[in-house]
Amino acid sequence: MHTINCLGLGRVVASNHPDYQKNDIVHGTINWAEYTIVKTQDMLKKLDTIEFPLSYYVGIFGFSGLTAYGGFFKICKPKKEDKVFVSAAAGSVGNLVGQYAKLFGCYVVGCAGTKQKVNFLKEKLGFDEAFNYKEETDLNSTLQRYFPDGIDIYFDNVGGEMLEAVVANMNAFGRIAACGVLSGYTNSKKHIALSMVDVVYKRIMIHGFLATDFTSNDFNDFMSVTKDYVRAGKLSVPEDISFGIETIPSAFVGLFRGDNVGKKIVQIAKE
Amino acid sequence: MHTINCLGLGRVVASNHPDYQKNDIVHGTINWAEYTIVKTQDMLKKLDTIEFPLSYYVGIFGFSGLTAYGGFFKICKPKKEDKVFVSAAAGSVGNLVGQYAKLFGCYVVGCAGTKQKVNFLKEKLGFDEAFNYKEETDLNSTLQRYFPDGIDIYFDNVGGEMLEAVVANMNAFGRIAACGVLSGYTNSKKHIALSMVDVVYKRIMIHGFLATDFTSNDFNDFMSVTKDYVRAGKLSVPEDISFGIETIPSAFVGLFRGDNVGKKIVQIAKE
Repeated sequence: MHTINCLGLGRVVASNHPDYQKNDIVHGTINWAEYTIVKTQDMLKKLDTIEFPLSYYVGIFGFSGLTAYGGFFKICKPKKEDKVFVSAAAGSVGNLVGQYAKLFGCYVVGCAGTKQKVNFLKEKLGFDEAFNYKEETDLNSTLQRYFPDGIDIYFDNVGGEMLEAVVANMNAFGRIAACGVLSGYTNSKKHIALSMVDVVYKRIMIHGFLATDFTSNDFNDFMSVTKDYVRAGKLSVPEDISFGIETIPSAFVGLFRGDNVGKKIVQIAKE
Repeated sequence: MHTINCLGLGRVVASNHPDYQKNDIVHGTINWAEYTIVKTQDMLKKLDTIEFPLSYYVGIFGFSGLTAYGGFFKICKPKKEDKVFVSAAAGSVGNLVGQYAKLFGCYVVGCAGTKQKVNFLKEKLGFDEAFNYKEETDLNSTLQRYFPDGIDIYFDNVGGEMLEAVVANMNAFGRIAACGVLSGYTNSKKHIALSMVDVVYKRIMIHGFLATDFTSNDFNDFMSVTKDYVRAGKLSVPEDISFGIETIPSAFVGLFRGDNVGKKIVQIAKE
């Protein structure tokens, strides 16, 4: 039988392994399934204390949070008052990057693809500004408008024309964390037309990264800072949860159509 | 009168400044001229000891050397046995990058625009391989041929299609020092078509830099290492010197036409 893995949670129904008892909650790489037989070599860990809603362990305390935290702090090396731009800012990673950046003391602008998301970023998440890129005809002048003093950090979830416009509007020693290429996943032939003259003379750094690259020290920093923020009510945790195994295909397609606000999660069974 | 500065050397003919005597050699930012009046605020320094040929102080011990050393060691952070590719490898910066990389223990391939330069890189400078990019029709497969195990470091002096092909052939965690854009200086509309999917999934870092960014510690490292190598005869210092103020225009144009092997220097007056 062919199975597909995801980052998920499950409740133990029966166990032959001495470390796991019935009703334990386990967390890690798991099948998309209502029931699954887990072999010992699988990447699962028992959740010993469950302080937060279970969904947080696959979102903000999972790869989405680590990607946002590590990409922003370790790759972009922010300074207070840096001007930060985030694309796909209402997505599972982008919304957290913007919130971390605001808490750190930066000026933060996000872009997203609907008016509802733009309002959400400004009103619920505290972004300084946000705009709907689909309503803009000239991204270069859009960015000039939102960043009259230039961009210091760009957390890039989309690639494409937005990245070209950012490079044109970037300050000297600007840093770009290349996290995702939403504009390229659906059209792999679409490459960006980057001005390397800008890259050299403005000493721009563009750095691709994946969450799995960070060290265990980075991970511990991330968990400690993020849990403190969540406990203090300083970080919002937007989630978009659909129920039932039959919602997996539409949840997946929706990621590329821009349906979700915050982390997209499929809940297969009741807690 | 309009004057144009360069990095150069001059001999003091007359001085009202107590620190400078007739016949002192000064080094730094100076006019392109046979004679010039230097004001105190100009960026000139007396050469106290003259251990090497004077031309070395504007080439290998000047911005060319610092760019090569800093770009390779500080930006690219090499490891022994890394596979290193250098474009414009017979130029003033590229030839030194390749030599530093070989001395450090890397596998080094350079490209250049004439057969004579390619032979020079392999036979005189000890590059492992070199090729004439003008003879290649498919840069992607050319790089596959010279780098069957992929590229770890690219020292980019040209931008353009070569950079696209390098990204396609780069290993995970590859590093690109973006030093120059020879392909773009003469055609500023020509932007590169970069695969950001490669940049993200291979965690490629592209970093623009200028020699002026390095710290004084970096500079001291560079001078000490480089002087030791030159004294020991381990670094070749290719230079292309033309004589007379009337050769300035052709020297400048020649840089973009690929005329020079090594550092292009104009000698205006006899020592």
